[in-house]
Amino acid sequence: MKESKKKWLSFALVGALAASSISVSAINKVEAKEKNPKTEQAKNVIMLVMDGSSDNVSTIARWYKGESLALDSILTGAVRTYSAESAITDSAPAATALATGNKSNSGYIGVLPSLVTTPGVEAVAKEDAFKPVANVLEGAKLQGKATGIISTSEIQHATPAGFSSHVTSRKNYDDIAEQQVYQNIDVVLGGGYQSLKETRKDGEDLLKVIEEKGYDYVSNRNELLSSTSEKLWGSFAPSALAYDFDRQILKSDEPTIAEMTEKAIDTLSKDKDGFFLMVEGSKIDWAAHANDPIGMLSDFLAFDDAVAEALEFAEKDGETLVIALTDHGNSGITIGNVNTDSTYDTTPVSAYINPLKEAKMTVEGALSLLKKDKSNLVEVAESYGLTNITDQELEALKKSENLGKTLVQLLSTRANIGFTTGGHTGDDVFLYSYGPANPTGLVENTDLAHLMARSMGFSLGDLTNELFVNATVEFEKLGYTTKIDVADEKNPVFVAEGKNTIITIPENKNIVYVQNKQSKNTKTHVVNSVAVYNDKQFFISKEMLKLSK
Amino acid sequence: MKESKKKWLSFALVGALAASSISVSAINKVEAKEKNPKTEQAKNVIMLVMDGSSDNVSTIARWYKGESLALDSILTGAVRTYSAESAITDSAPAATALATGNKSNSGYIGVLPSLVTTPGVEAVAKEDAFKPVANVLEGAKLQGKATGIISTSEIQHATPAGFSSHVTSRKNYDDIAEQQVYQNIDVVLGGGYQSLKETRKDGEDLLKVIEEKGYDYVSNRNELLSSTSEKLWGSFAPSALAYDFDRQILKSDEPTIAEMTEKAIDTLSKDKDGFFLMVEGSKIDWAAHANDPIGMLSDFLAFDDAVAEALEFAEKDGETLVIALTDHGNSGITIGNVNTDSTYDTTPVSAYINPLKEAKMTVEGALSLLKKDKSNLVEVAESYGLTNITDQELEALKKSENLGKTLVQLLSTRANIGFTTGGHTGDDVFLYSYGPANPTGLVENTDLAHLMARSMGFSLGDLTNELFVNATVEFEKLGYTTKIDVADEKNPVFVAEGKNTIITIPENKNIVYVQNKQSKNTKTHVVNSVAVYNDKQFFISKEMLKLSK
Repeated sequence: MKESKKKWLSFALVGALAASSISVSAINKVEAKEKNPKTEQAKNVIMLVMDGSSDNVSTIARWYKGESLALDSILTGAVRTYSAESAITDSAPAATALATGNKSNSGYIGVLPSLVTTPGVEAVAKEDAFKPVANVLEGAKLQGKATGIISTSEIQHATPAGFSSHVTSRKNYDDIAEQQVYQNIDVVLGGGYQSLKETRKDGEDLLKVIEEKGYDYVSNRNELLSSTSEKLWGSFAPSALAYDFDRQILKSDEPTIAEMTEKAIDTLSKDKDGFFLMVEGSKIDWAAHANDPIGMLSDFLAFDDAVAEALEFAEKDGETLVIALTDHGNSGITIGNVNTDSTYDTTPVSAYINPLKEAKMTVEGALSLLKKDKSNLVEVAESYGLTNITDQELEALKKSENLGKTLVQLLSTRANIGFTTGGHTGDDVFLYSYGPANPTGLVENTDLAHLMARSMGFSLGDLTNELFVNATVEFEKLGYTTKIDVADEKNPVFVAEGKNTIITIPENKNIVYVQNKQSKNTKTHVVNSVAVYNDKQFFISKEMLKLSK
Repeated sequence: MKESKKKWLSFALVGALAASSISVSAINKVEAKEKNPKTEQAKNVIMLVMDGSSDNVSTIARWYKGESLALDSILTGAVRTYSAESAITDSAPAATALATGNKSNSGYIGVLPSLVTTPGVEAVAKEDAFKPVANVLEGAKLQGKATGIISTSEIQHATPAGFSSHVTSRKNYDDIAEQQVYQNIDVVLGGGYQSLKETRKDGEDLLKVIEEKGYDYVSNRNELLSSTSEKLWGSFAPSALAYDFDRQILKSDEPTIAEMTEKAIDTLSKDKDGFFLMVEGSKIDWAAHANDPIGMLSDFLAFDDAVAEALEFAEKDGETLVIALTDHGNSGITIGNVNTDSTYDTTPVSAYINPLKEAKMTVEGALSLLKKDKSNLVEVAESYGLTNITDQELEALKKSENLGKTLVQLLSTRANIGFTTGGHTGDDVFLYSYGPANPTGLVENTDLAHLMARSMGFSLGDLTNELFVNATVEFEKLGYTTKIDVADEKNPVFVAEGKNTIITIPENKNIVYVQNKQSKNTKTHVVNSVAVYNDKQFFISKEMLKLSK
């Protein structure tokens, strides 16, 4: 571990406590490192996830851009994306698969599934349902590597959450945010500051904790770019950041995903032990749900620029594994629709791309400019690419009960773009990778987690055994009396009472309080991972358990 | 065809001629072989094309099959499929790209485009439009390799045509069939015998020519499997073969695509110089046009079995390059449709697959059983998977003006399968490959042609220069008077008259007649490639040109 981290630990969290009372024991690096040949090792691992970006988006985006994509140079295979319960995955189990190597259920973040129906997925014992499983970021951290997560949505959203937390519902932003803050991630960049504020249900002011922990907290592009801190927390919007096309016009104080990625790499690469970084282009998925090709293009192209940053570093560095992919398909977007049923073979590229090029903003951005009296409807439609609007089109907009839906339908009709659904799709998706022992061929999303772990020298199975043991069972084995105290239901704590000590462990934090029953003195131990309460059981690391001795 | 020519033809082919009058000179193997390292060489090359099979078909087929596909083991990248004039290719320019390394126009087979609008595609000089360009099969043949083409459609269909002929319209089955017959391909298996019969517009009985050329002509599965000939022509249906699911019930005398592939490999691999084989699973595309998921599954799975045959040989052989791909997307099929807009994340695999499993036949097969009075409509619907038909479904069928369309819509609704179009789509598609110097990453369809040529030791550019020179220009350079004689418009011939000889070259054949003006004796030369007339210019090989000397 870096000197600066030790310093921070003694300084920030401990307050009045003596340094000696802080245990920062390192979990033994697992044997995996020895097992694997050197060629499979990567000093740094960067995973970039373009959420909900069906393969066809890359084809459209390449025509739109008029030149090769960064991703084009590293296409190496394909990925199966289904969940434990469905042919089409939700982003939460997708992130869980990519981060922990386990297929899970809709909405589950970093925990095992309770329902396994998918053929070929191994059943999970009933008692293991909802059990937290370690992720690659946690493993990287324990290897002494710097870590980072980036998203263009709120950072508590499913994908970044999957790489940094363990909750039974992706909607539980409060718990996700709290775990993220207590995970000691070095760089956290994205949106979602509303989940950090003291208005949280549990009353915690995580913004304050972030500052106490020694982060440079930045809230706009300039602050981000000028920061020199090795610990960096950037939150640039209350929830999600703007789509990149909209950002250019409406939100120029927000950083691009490429800027966030470059800054994160600059910062994390100072760690001599290497780093793990997860980058999500979040809103391609949202645009796909809305069947908005402009939103998809906007954020796919911005994501591709982030990939370019990662590749530029990896090429220079030579010890960096880069993996990029979408977590699942979405919308069934195609070049070609019912307009081209019988004309596709002679319809030029321009017939698809020129109509799309007319749009200056996504449908979200354009609609944000709509006046209440809709007096600027034509201008709004124009900014979304519906230039020289026809009487028919205008009529459709005026009649529309869902203006967003009508706008995207009109533009997609002009651009001969088809969609099959407003939901995700079950397709295998392209795998992009570069660097030492990079993955190739057709793989499971879960394979990628194990491969990244192997690259960094650990096994996720072993790591889960280290980080998540059942607190009740283990403390009772040691002769403690235990309870899960939910008196304050927003702040459950695990309590184990032994002969001489009362041990208290709050959920979502990397903190263990050990009270001497006689002296009533309490020592606060800051450990390497967070405790997780899944509403039934409390899970702690072996490091926490050892503090009982 | 004129009587005199028929005489020449029979004379030449029946072997009554002295060997000395037949010139079968070999074109010099191009320098490419020397240029490339040994590691890039493959003794054998097998290209398997699943026509119109969007990537999503593989995902659905894998669930349907319940186990891994043969293709799954060799996924190595992706392919760009657009044509010279359109973002979405027709099968003809797609085959031209894969076989000759040139992007072309809709309907064009083995000739250069006359219209280039796609960004990034090099312009073609006006005088080069419609010019024939050499394909990998022609190159393989000149390297001394055995060659074969297989399709489940009529063998004159666009994809096999692209690997064996040069015509300005894919609809021109007569010319395609004639060139195929005169290309000296060792193994030709598929449908389409109606284009071989004496009912052809030009009056040629190609079936007779096939027999004269020493092929074992087989017309059913048993004949195919029991043949021991090294030259094998199998034509198993007047036009296309049945879909594989329908074949199992209705057409068991037709061979499967896997059986054709295995037989072709057995036959061709006897050539000590190696072989080139093209295999097309043709009707996935047709089912996709009809939005029939059963037809797509039927022929995708049958195709995958053919891939398994190719891989089994390649693994044992060690010197065989296998490339498999679709030539373009079609239908925009997705797992997930409007039914699953908001339920996709919890919809199990069985909800998609079980309804599909109910179908015993494709919609084509099922409808072939419909009685004129439609009295067995319920049974027909059942055989297409609409078991336990609801009143609503039956009503829809009874009202339907397009029963096929209604059937596929009803089944796709049951199976939560979406489509965007009845036409092709513009997506990049998965690349599958195995063997020496196999292609990986994102490539152009044209790259694959050049890679196969390189593997076999030649350059397609050089080969085109050898096989297709402008007959008028070149003979006039030599002092000949020339004409293209279209007096018999179905049998145009090129005629060059010199001081001592009259040289006559019919289109579509590998034959040159050299008449001594004094003696009136005519020698018939059989050469290595066919002459091509594109309705403006006559193209012949340098080998043909040399016969003037």
